[in-house]
Amino acid sequence: MKKAVVLLSGGMDSAVALYIARKKYDCFCLTFDYGQRHKSELDAAAKIARLAGAKHRVLKISFPWKGSSLLDKKIKVPIGRSVDIIKKQVPSTYVPARNIIFLSFATSCAEVIKAETIFIGAHTQDYSGYPDCRPDFFKVFQKVIDKGTKTGTDKKSIKIEIPLLKYNKEKILKIGQKLKVPFEFTWSCYKGGKNPCGSCDSCLFRKKAFEKLGIKDPASFKK
Amino acid sequence: MKKAVVLLSGGMDSAVALYIARKKYDCFCLTFDYGQRHKSELDAAAKIARLAGAKHRVLKISFPWKGSSLLDKKIKVPIGRSVDIIKKQVPSTYVPARNIIFLSFATSCAEVIKAETIFIGAHTQDYSGYPDCRPDFFKVFQKVIDKGTKTGTDKKSIKIEIPLLKYNKEKILKIGQKLKVPFEFTWSCYKGGKNPCGSCDSCLFRKKAFEKLGIKDPASFKK
Repeated sequence: MKKAVVLLSGGMDSAVALYIARKKYDCFCLTFDYGQRHKSELDAAAKIARLAGAKHRVLKISFPWKGSSLLDKKIKVPIGRSVDIIKKQVPSTYVPARNIIFLSFATSCAEVIKAETIFIGAHTQDYSGYPDCRPDFFKVFQKVIDKGTKTGTDKKSIKIEIPLLKYNKEKILKIGQKLKVPFEFTWSCYKGGKNPCGSCDSCLFRKKAFEKLGIKDPASFKK
Repeated sequence: MKKAVVLLSGGMDSAVALYIARKKYDCFCLTFDYGQRHKSELDAAAKIARLAGAKHRVLKISFPWKGSSLLDKKIKVPIGRSVDIIKKQVPSTYVPARNIIFLSFATSCAEVIKAETIFIGAHTQDYSGYPDCRPDFFKVFQKVIDKGTKTGTDKKSIKIEIPLLKYNKEKILKIGQKLKVPFEFTWSCYKGGKNPCGSCDSCLFRKKAFEKLGIKDPASFKK
């Protein structure tokens, strides 16, 4: 079976991306312990990878310069914002160059384990504030792989796959349901609490998606 | 004074890049402890940054998948090769996506500390085997910064500067001499020994440069 590296955060989107990838690939998941407030996503990622029958590795990295409310407890995580506002600006939860760094490690891993593909669960419909989630960014990062690796310059390059790119959270949830993604174990909340706060941008998008489909969030049963 | 992030390995090239950068910028150096055999370069980098009056941070990262003779002690570091051979192929000392990862962290740091520039001491004249040292690679990585960061999409992007790109080791040595780079503290050898081995690709290029200029390597006085 062909191999893929999957960037798995422990949230809904990357879990769905993994369940799409595993239909065709032997999956090697990478999760980053990068000093984020919401460390609960690390346990979520481990559980999801195990349930999906995928290999999994957590890499510890650091952002000593911080620069994000996900890293710096002195900056408040925004709460209770409307979706229109969220989409209009880059929020304080933006972590400078995070996806650039994650994709760089995925590239290194893919080159060594001879994976054909890197899966990332990014999408533009929601969270459009993050510059490193936009289609233009992925296009140029693909060129970095093509030009900056041995695999890319030798023969067929490693390809970035972004299966959810054009979807919104509701559609992603629908796809995930069909694939039996264990959403009860995914973690979305940006805050570091024991239970999801229900009011950060990430909780709000998640809530909205479940409400639109008229189903109850299975993660909420665990409270 | 404007700020620059400088990728400082502890070798000759990045030391010269730092001494070029510090003429115009307040420099913030980044060095990576990535499991390399030649950990001596970490001490070298710290010393050089201090002498240059630059800030310095060592980031610990890992490549659990290895894939390079610099990381995997089971793979031998090539020795005694001719320069023509070295230039013809990607050597086993290539670390998959290393410069992609280093530049990614530099991008994150630069964005947060509001640096205008990232300096990297890469050059193509020697070591042309490494795909992530080629001009084409830097061109596309520049686009990643332009498209994938808040700074890049908001206003003026962070610029990668590669001041030594077109030079060979001899020319780099000459420039460094003029700038009074403390070459006696730089570390080039790929092997993990107490003293440089004198026969790995990196030692050979260094030796050749000093020989061509007819001067003795000051690092050799320390033995």
